[in-house]
Amino acid sequence: MAHFLEKELKALGAQVELRELGPQGAGTNVDLPPIVLGKYGNDPNKRTILVYGHYDVQPALLEDGWDTEPFTLVQKDDKLIGRGSTDDKGPVLGWINSIEAHQQAGIEFPVNLVFCFEGMEEYGSEGLDDLIHEEANKFFKDVDATCISDNYWLGTTHPVLTYGLRGCSYYSVTVEGPSADLHSGIFGGMVSEPLIDLTHVLAQLVDPQGKILIPGVNDLVAPLTPDEEKLYDNIKYSMDDLYSATGSKTNLFDTEKESLKARWRYPTLSLHGIEGAFSAPGAKTVIPAKVIGKFSLRTVPNIQPRELDELVFKHIDNVWKKLNSKNKIEVKLLHDGLWWLSDPHHWNFEAAKKATKAVWHVDPDLTREGGSIPVTLTFEQALKKNVLLLPMGRGDDGAHSINEKINVDNYINGVKTLSAYLHYVSVEPSS
Amino acid sequence: MAHFLEKELKALGAQVELRELGPQGAGTNVDLPPIVLGKYGNDPNKRTILVYGHYDVQPALLEDGWDTEPFTLVQKDDKLIGRGSTDDKGPVLGWINSIEAHQQAGIEFPVNLVFCFEGMEEYGSEGLDDLIHEEANKFFKDVDATCISDNYWLGTTHPVLTYGLRGCSYYSVTVEGPSADLHSGIFGGMVSEPLIDLTHVLAQLVDPQGKILIPGVNDLVAPLTPDEEKLYDNIKYSMDDLYSATGSKTNLFDTEKESLKARWRYPTLSLHGIEGAFSAPGAKTVIPAKVIGKFSLRTVPNIQPRELDELVFKHIDNVWKKLNSKNKIEVKLLHDGLWWLSDPHHWNFEAAKKATKAVWHVDPDLTREGGSIPVTLTFEQALKKNVLLLPMGRGDDGAHSINEKINVDNYINGVKTLSAYLHYVSVEPSS
Repeated sequence: MAHFLEKELKALGAQVELRELGPQGAGTNVDLPPIVLGKYGNDPNKRTILVYGHYDVQPALLEDGWDTEPFTLVQKDDKLIGRGSTDDKGPVLGWINSIEAHQQAGIEFPVNLVFCFEGMEEYGSEGLDDLIHEEANKFFKDVDATCISDNYWLGTTHPVLTYGLRGCSYYSVTVEGPSADLHSGIFGGMVSEPLIDLTHVLAQLVDPQGKILIPGVNDLVAPLTPDEEKLYDNIKYSMDDLYSATGSKTNLFDTEKESLKARWRYPTLSLHGIEGAFSAPGAKTVIPAKVIGKFSLRTVPNIQPRELDELVFKHIDNVWKKLNSKNKIEVKLLHDGLWWLSDPHHWNFEAAKKATKAVWHVDPDLTREGGSIPVTLTFEQALKKNVLLLPMGRGDDGAHSINEKINVDNYINGVKTLSAYLHYVSVEPSS
Repeated sequence: MAHFLEKELKALGAQVELRELGPQGAGTNVDLPPIVLGKYGNDPNKRTILVYGHYDVQPALLEDGWDTEPFTLVQKDDKLIGRGSTDDKGPVLGWINSIEAHQQAGIEFPVNLVFCFEGMEEYGSEGLDDLIHEEANKFFKDVDATCISDNYWLGTTHPVLTYGLRGCSYYSVTVEGPSADLHSGIFGGMVSEPLIDLTHVLAQLVDPQGKILIPGVNDLVAPLTPDEEKLYDNIKYSMDDLYSATGSKTNLFDTEKESLKARWRYPTLSLHGIEGAFSAPGAKTVIPAKVIGKFSLRTVPNIQPRELDELVFKHIDNVWKKLNSKNKIEVKLLHDGLWWLSDPHHWNFEAAKKATKAVWHVDPDLTREGGSIPVTLTFEQALKKNVLLLPMGRGDDGAHSINEKINVDNYINGVKTLSAYLHYVSVEPSS
């Protein structure tokens, strides 16, 4: 796929190079797929837009339950079905189609493009962060703004632009006592049980209404300004969308606005599970010797990871002391990633709003995402330029599922939107 | 092994039959190992003692970590090592050796023996309960008392007689919400998480000091009488035994007496684990859709299972209502078994005390066990005769572990004790 992109881009007159990741491959001997770097156009009078995408995909097998061969793109009614159709080969090809269309129509391309297409996104973007930082003042030095088309509309009918992502801090709490698992008949009642202790710790992190019980966390959240509040007006999202996505009516909030705020601009704490306890079907009378609880917080402005760690560690320490247990506890941060919040009034966004309006005849909703796309933040921090997330597909595309698809009109109008965006970029006054 | 026992017992002059369990095998086509029923002696002037044992064993493979071939008995220093040496082939052979010894010494056997040796004990004693009830007034009709040698000394130096076992009631609590697992980035904060709810329920069942938080359970416990209290005096058990058995100093009580009471005569509640949550190593950002918590109570006189169920269901129902969650909860009893408490002053026990004193030159400790041996209760209820647990091996024999052993002097003195017990039985006045 890297060579295909290289060939296609070169055929269009772009300058292309493949950056091999082999030696950076985390100490393995496997050659990683290269990052495709390219430049199309070099006019100092034009703005330069960095476009990022990825050509790798999630694994897929017919026997997973696909209706068609996952690696053969097929059209069925109004849908193009195949692995990568929406995540993220479709959008990557969209940029190429845009250049082709300009050439075939004899229209001057409105901006300089810089391409960064990686092949490791689904496996943690190995090597990409280093490359971005290294090339920030070299290959990427003229970039005026970044556009990433690697997410989805909130729903299925209304185009969106995305200006924020939550971060994630993932922790483990290990409680251990006896040197090996014990029989609950023999030892139950004589010893402190690690799983009982852990359960009491986990229950004091969050309540069933989703309220985070760690003192100080909610104080770090940026207050909701009237300007931000307005962004939640008229978002095309209904409680039925939530019911249908979760297959249940287990919503914590009764309104769309409160639900979206909870997903986008407030932190949450989820319990994921426990390692080391009895987790199989059936009934086993074991006292597990060592159990590891896993939980994570989705973070938002202005929660700083180190500050959060301190609050988490301190709270669990306080809870633990009150439990008065002879077992041992250890809390660890397993990984973290910062939230990202862009300025949706920047010229980069204004151009995308006009493009969306021109193609789809509606104003795009301005959305955030509850999850993370770490490369977004890396581009913004390394290049110090605005980043826009401009999705092509819909919320029901099934990016990581079976029968991944992109609707034909999302693809065609998507390519038009990318193209129109570049035209508006070329005339939008700096903000 | 059943045929070996049949042959040996017949060679000694016993009447033996094999009861096939095939058709009772829970709907399977596998022929289950038969129950060996036998009678030795038929003198109406003698007492008749039923002896129970089992000839099946736990699985064992050299590669599990055994130092020697598990199914070849080897003597190493003062130990006989091999699967089943202590649990329970050793004690079963002990009864046969006792008959042989009497015959070789030309001493009249002091009682009539009835044998019941099964081959399914390690797999739930399939079919045995039915057989005991069916034969209570037939094959077992003349039985005056039962003796089971299938447990262990409390420690490693002092012989014991066992007069009580705890029961066990095992429950599951299922909490479910969404129709499938959700991504915590996208849905965290919008929906009620089943694992958060379950954690809050489990934390309200028991506290880290082992206190059962279900109202009413502790009120059902029989009060400690001065007579029972006396049974805890001078038991040869030290806190070091507990530290060494658990490889930790995570004891809930500081004294031997309180620890043993907690193990033998008070109920406990253990949390075993959670099915359906993330239980692997690593970090997965999942909101599990359906989680099943497992817990059990070890029960004691006078807790009745149905009464306990009611308290458990009612408490969880109350806790659940206060959580105010939109998820669904279901509490189920997975299995239960009643506690057993015998009269340690019965002639059956008095005979065993004298036998122990004669062979080991010490008075046996009177102990209970925290775990369950369900057949004990079945014999007592079906035959309405006293049951005595007279163990042969030590507390460190490693019954279900690698390198299972029985000490040579425990075996030899054990056979002597079984024999002496039968002699004292023949002269002990009825109590």
